[in-house]
Amino acid sequence: MAVVGGGAVGLAVAWRCAARGLRVTVHDPAPGSGASHVAAGMLSPVAEAYFGERELTGLLVASAARWPAFAAELTAASGVDLGYRTEGTLVVGLTGDDLAEAQRLWSYQRDLGLPISPLRPSELRDREPALATRVRGGAVAPGDHQVDPRRLVTALRTAAERAGATLVTGAVRALSDLDARVTVVAAGCGAAALTGLPVRPVKGQILRLRAPDGGPPGFRHVVRGYADGEPVYLVPREDGEVVVGATVEERADTDVTAGAVLRLLRAAVDLVPELAEYELVEATAGLRPGTPDNAPIIGPLPGRPGVLVATGHHRHGIVLTPLTADLVTELVVAEPTAPATADPLLAPCTPERFAGQRRPG
Amino acid sequence: MAVVGGGAVGLAVAWRCAARGLRVTVHDPAPGSGASHVAAGMLSPVAEAYFGERELTGLLVASAARWPAFAAELTAASGVDLGYRTEGTLVVGLTGDDLAEAQRLWSYQRDLGLPISPLRPSELRDREPALATRVRGGAVAPGDHQVDPRRLVTALRTAAERAGATLVTGAVRALSDLDARVTVVAAGCGAAALTGLPVRPVKGQILRLRAPDGGPPGFRHVVRGYADGEPVYLVPREDGEVVVGATVEERADTDVTAGAVLRLLRAAVDLVPELAEYELVEATAGLRPGTPDNAPIIGPLPGRPGVLVATGHHRHGIVLTPLTADLVTELVVAEPTAPATADPLLAPCTPERFAGQRRPG
Repeated sequence: MAVVGGGAVGLAVAWRCAARGLRVTVHDPAPGSGASHVAAGMLSPVAEAYFGERELTGLLVASAARWPAFAAELTAASGVDLGYRTEGTLVVGLTGDDLAEAQRLWSYQRDLGLPISPLRPSELRDREPALATRVRGGAVAPGDHQVDPRRLVTALRTAAERAGATLVTGAVRALSDLDARVTVVAAGCGAAALTGLPVRPVKGQILRLRAPDGGPPGFRHVVRGYADGEPVYLVPREDGEVVVGATVEERADTDVTAGAVLRLLRAAVDLVPELAEYELVEATAGLRPGTPDNAPIIGPLPGRPGVLVATGHHRHGIVLTPLTADLVTELVVAEPTAPATADPLLAPCTPERFAGQRRPG
Repeated sequence: MAVVGGGAVGLAVAWRCAARGLRVTVHDPAPGSGASHVAAGMLSPVAEAYFGERELTGLLVASAARWPAFAAELTAASGVDLGYRTEGTLVVGLTGDDLAEAQRLWSYQRDLGLPISPLRPSELRDREPALATRVRGGAVAPGDHQVDPRRLVTALRTAAERAGATLVTGAVRALSDLDARVTVVAAGCGAAALTGLPVRPVKGQILRLRAPDGGPPGFRHVVRGYADGEPVYLVPREDGEVVVGATVEERADTDVTAGAVLRLLRAAVDLVPELAEYELVEATAGLRPGTPDNAPIIGPLPGRPGVLVATGHHRHGIVLTPLTADLVTELVVAEPTAPATADPLLAPCTPERFAGQRRPG
């Protein structure tokens, strides 16, 4: 079988399939250089549960539940530390308005039965003294974890190769160029040209800071905040890195702009003042594969027997990696031309839902 | 003769001396990679005339007066466009407090007889419609020009080599390692270790933006502004670059910090809002060679016959390059062991003024 795309999703599919005994070849001109390279790595089914996205939330919860075992298995298979952290996520509001906005969302999340609990400001600061004294309030989502996506890609690549998969460094221009019984298209935004599916680039700008003097950051939870109306997240890693993200822009360029960096830094420093002293190591922009309904596209490509799709993960590629890899592997192993046997979780993800929107592939 | 240091000053000395028929070798592990690489290139004797620095101001004015002929001669000798621009500099204040601070300085500058004229807000905006409507007022220094320091270094290197100078890529650990009749130490902060003079690193963080779509920036003057107490300058180049600078920090590291980038971007975007849409191309930090009295150190090193010093230019290396090169060349050509013949302009620059502060060289 062939996998087109060597990001987190493509490599995870390759690892799982190779471990099941399949001969797998992964094609990518620059493995791990796409959205996975820019991603922050929040595993946030709760804090990412937005109004009107109930089915997507179900997918996120299901995949996040698989993460602990997936991380343990992958670490054992690769010998690579993924930077997986389980301290949980704090959701905070800087001003009264920010707090009201955050509360509205976490009330909705609680109504769905998701684990998120309001904290008093003093409780918030007991957990993270680095938070600005201005921060008006917040909540904790203890099950919203994080992982380092760059370590994840390294681990997946190692595990896939150890399981027998082959990596071919090169671009695939058309699916007809591949000579494989089954092909999985996990090419992110590149899936649009290969399949005709309505996958569009959604630009995200993101920063990487580093704590001074080689130490760890002065906070341990993922912090998701609203700061004067600006949503921002701060992801602290044990190696000293802090990821600050991210813009969501309907653009296809990867320019880093002064205005976006200004907005991200202002919000970050307003929420955690000590970040001003951190080194600004990297400012990058990536392109998320977005879909018309914000849900991923996972399943057989209509009219193309033997072609499966795994793309459109938008802002959720890292959290959805274990579930996507498992579901795709089951489809491949079972019988790729028999979608009727698919897991019910795949119902909202089927490529068929965009049958009317496909351009000639 | 040997020149230690291949930045703007060292290369200009090398060019001038080689053109006078001397055999010149320039030593630098990475020519043009020091303070010259980070410099903004403002030629601002007026706007840089600060309280209590009268003699330094005299030097800046004298060197700026040499710039037009120097630029023309260097362009002819090298074939390199220096990006020399003569639109002048606007000094602006964002808030009432900022304007009061700017006014206090430009009143002092006018009292010195320097060319700077207040403008009404409407006159300011007629000159630069890109300025924020919030900007409360300002002044114009028509003789404060600019040049691109990276193009300057390329041009000086070309001109020096065409005149017969040799560039040796390597570090000089001690002056005794050099076998030359005359040695000019133009090593920036590195001069401290070589000469024992009290030259200290003064860190500056600086940004380079780029106008969208390959066009030129939306303003043509250098803008020096105060924005909510934050001093910032914006230097627009015809090739689309805008330099935003710079912090002044008593530190010796070259880390780029989140707080500095935030302060520079906030002040820049407050003064010229369209900069938010510009690409952030580069964030760098460099080390200016500072001296105890902020004036450069130019002249013979006491007790070391045949050794001349040209360093300590702090924030003024680019504007002082022509004058420094001319003065040093005269000293070299005349007789390096007879400092009594030196130009009176050199009086405030003599290394002897720090005789009591020298550490063992």
